[in-house]
Amino acid sequence: MKATIERATLLKSLGHVQSVVERRNTIPILSNVLIEATSEGTLRLMATDLDLQIVEQVAAAVDQPGAITVSAHTLFDIARKLPEGSQVQLAAADGKMQVVAGRARFNLQTLPKDDFPMIAEGELPTKFELAAEILKQLIDKTRFAISTEETRYYLNGIFFHVQDDVLKAAATDGHRLARVTIPRPDGAEGMPDIIVPRKCVGELRKLLDEVDGSVDISLSSTKIRFGLGTAILTSKLIDGTFPDYNRVIPTANDKLLRIDPKSFMEGVDRVATIASEKTRAVKMALDRDKITLSVTSPENGTAAEEVPGDYASSGFEIGFNARYLLDILGQIDGDMVEVHLADAAAPTLIRENDKAPALYVLMPMRV
Amino acid sequence: MKATIERATLLKSLGHVQSVVERRNTIPILSNVLIEATSEGTLRLMATDLDLQIVEQVAAAVDQPGAITVSAHTLFDIARKLPEGSQVQLAAADGKMQVVAGRARFNLQTLPKDDFPMIAEGELPTKFELAAEILKQLIDKTRFAISTEETRYYLNGIFFHVQDDVLKAAATDGHRLARVTIPRPDGAEGMPDIIVPRKCVGELRKLLDEVDGSVDISLSSTKIRFGLGTAILTSKLIDGTFPDYNRVIPTANDKLLRIDPKSFMEGVDRVATIASEKTRAVKMALDRDKITLSVTSPENGTAAEEVPGDYASSGFEIGFNARYLLDILGQIDGDMVEVHLADAAAPTLIRENDKAPALYVLMPMRV
Repeated sequence: MKATIERATLLKSLGHVQSVVERRNTIPILSNVLIEATSEGTLRLMATDLDLQIVEQVAAAVDQPGAITVSAHTLFDIARKLPEGSQVQLAAADGKMQVVAGRARFNLQTLPKDDFPMIAEGELPTKFELAAEILKQLIDKTRFAISTEETRYYLNGIFFHVQDDVLKAAATDGHRLARVTIPRPDGAEGMPDIIVPRKCVGELRKLLDEVDGSVDISLSSTKIRFGLGTAILTSKLIDGTFPDYNRVIPTANDKLLRIDPKSFMEGVDRVATIASEKTRAVKMALDRDKITLSVTSPENGTAAEEVPGDYASSGFEIGFNARYLLDILGQIDGDMVEVHLADAAAPTLIRENDKAPALYVLMPMRV
Repeated sequence: MKATIERATLLKSLGHVQSVVERRNTIPILSNVLIEATSEGTLRLMATDLDLQIVEQVAAAVDQPGAITVSAHTLFDIARKLPEGSQVQLAAADGKMQVVAGRARFNLQTLPKDDFPMIAEGELPTKFELAAEILKQLIDKTRFAISTEETRYYLNGIFFHVQDDVLKAAATDGHRLARVTIPRPDGAEGMPDIIVPRKCVGELRKLLDEVDGSVDISLSSTKIRFGLGTAILTSKLIDGTFPDYNRVIPTANDKLLRIDPKSFMEGVDRVATIASEKTRAVKMALDRDKITLSVTSPENGTAAEEVPGDYASSGFEIGFNARYLLDILGQIDGDMVEVHLADAAAPTLIRENDKAPALYVLMPMRV
């Protein structure tokens, strides 16, 4: 293999690719990036953690096609430090890969390309396109609710499923639920229910920042592939059953609070300053058009703030985890949010309005 | 105590003060800031860790003089989150301190001001002024060499001493030495040799970023005080003897390399990419006007880079810790640096030129 590539192009691609590579690997080749120079004048860079695989394809001047694997993080660090604007020559010979740019010359340890594990995609019968902007929203408005509890592995991702003519994305950790609904894209009909793992979501979200148009999605019940410009991200899906989350979405909460999400958020954030790290509990006392947020902490003292809001039902008090409430309020774009309450122990529904694609459910805390 | 102060003023002062407060304290009052409102319309904020003490004095509208102590980090977090431009009312009553700004109201736990420990300064007979810019340089060009080995406590700071008509600042960890020499300021004659601890150096350096003019320094053999605008920093000095570092400054190194510090630095940084985390060893091979930097790593492979430089002595090879070499080169402002070498085992002298105030000594490594 012998090819020459611009340092900026190499750096950008390696930036994407090395991010999939785990810092610690018991299997040495998983630390490596597979570099393949093709006779069509392209360089393919591939990395995997056995569950998630990324392939980047970029233009390069190829003198001699071939393939080799070297440490992804080392090559990325080298590319970062090479002079701006330089041309980087990559050449494999005698079990080493030589990297030459300017006056610098590296001879890197390699592992043979044949040992590099590929994810067998198999058939991916469901195929559709999604605008990058829509996909970003599906992720941003749900991913914060993904569970980190490893024992509940079926909650460690975003659940996507089609229902009639809509596609829904949902995530929950048992304390809060986030769901976004969009019109079903052409081609998604008959799509299996899938759970996309947290790491795939994270890498996909980073790549989306550099995509303008639309993303090609192909999937089966076990794999998903995202085509994003020069990058293709392929992931195994979580093999589990996402709980029937519709049961926890309240439909009969009869107490409605309408409030400016920004001042609500700032108020919660301020009073939570003195909340204990462990519980982060904030109490909300509702009275006719008067909302009082408060925190009592044995160590720190007390905090209270009144926030203006429209509320016409009977007064009561309810407690929430400040962190969870802030996560949700941070996703509200408009200048008004609806908080549908029942009582101090019942799940609370939060949404911009009944037309908004996103909907959140938050379990209260005893305070 | 009752006083009103602008949020921006309070935030800035608390930013300085809370930085001295350790995150974990076995003595509860050391987590607190002492707030004192005086009848002259000032608010004094004070924090200490028993070795280092900071006092900030700012203007405030004082309704009722008095003093109280509250958690420094909590009050700082509250001030950060209060609305921009708000007026903050601080009032002590019934063992609590009330903080009111806008619609938010906090009641913070307090501890009595009489329990707050003060550092007794005693007599500080040596008094002089230093331009903030000069003091910054003394710190920046030496602090990286301060030892972090707690057993060699006498190296855990910057050593300041007067010799004839110069003031010298030096730091070393046994592997490298940094020394800066400036003309002796008026008033520093007869000054005792002192070692200013690392934490004081760090806090002082942060405060210097906001000082334009000069700094008032007063000291005895056990304490030092820095007067910086609205802040006064007082520190105990390290009770130990700094080694006679002049013995390790080579005077007869007869091989001179003159080199551009920027390309030298970039070359070292690049080849060091593949050096093992533990040793960070870089080999430098010197030949007539040809300097070759190289690294050999069993895990990663090899790296080499030629760097142009002026060298006319006999060729040889020497090894350095890349991190240490980069620390020193990063302090060279000009476009030429002198590296005075003797042999592969001897301390190497690095300086911009023989008129430069700063001088560095670096021990080689076997490579």
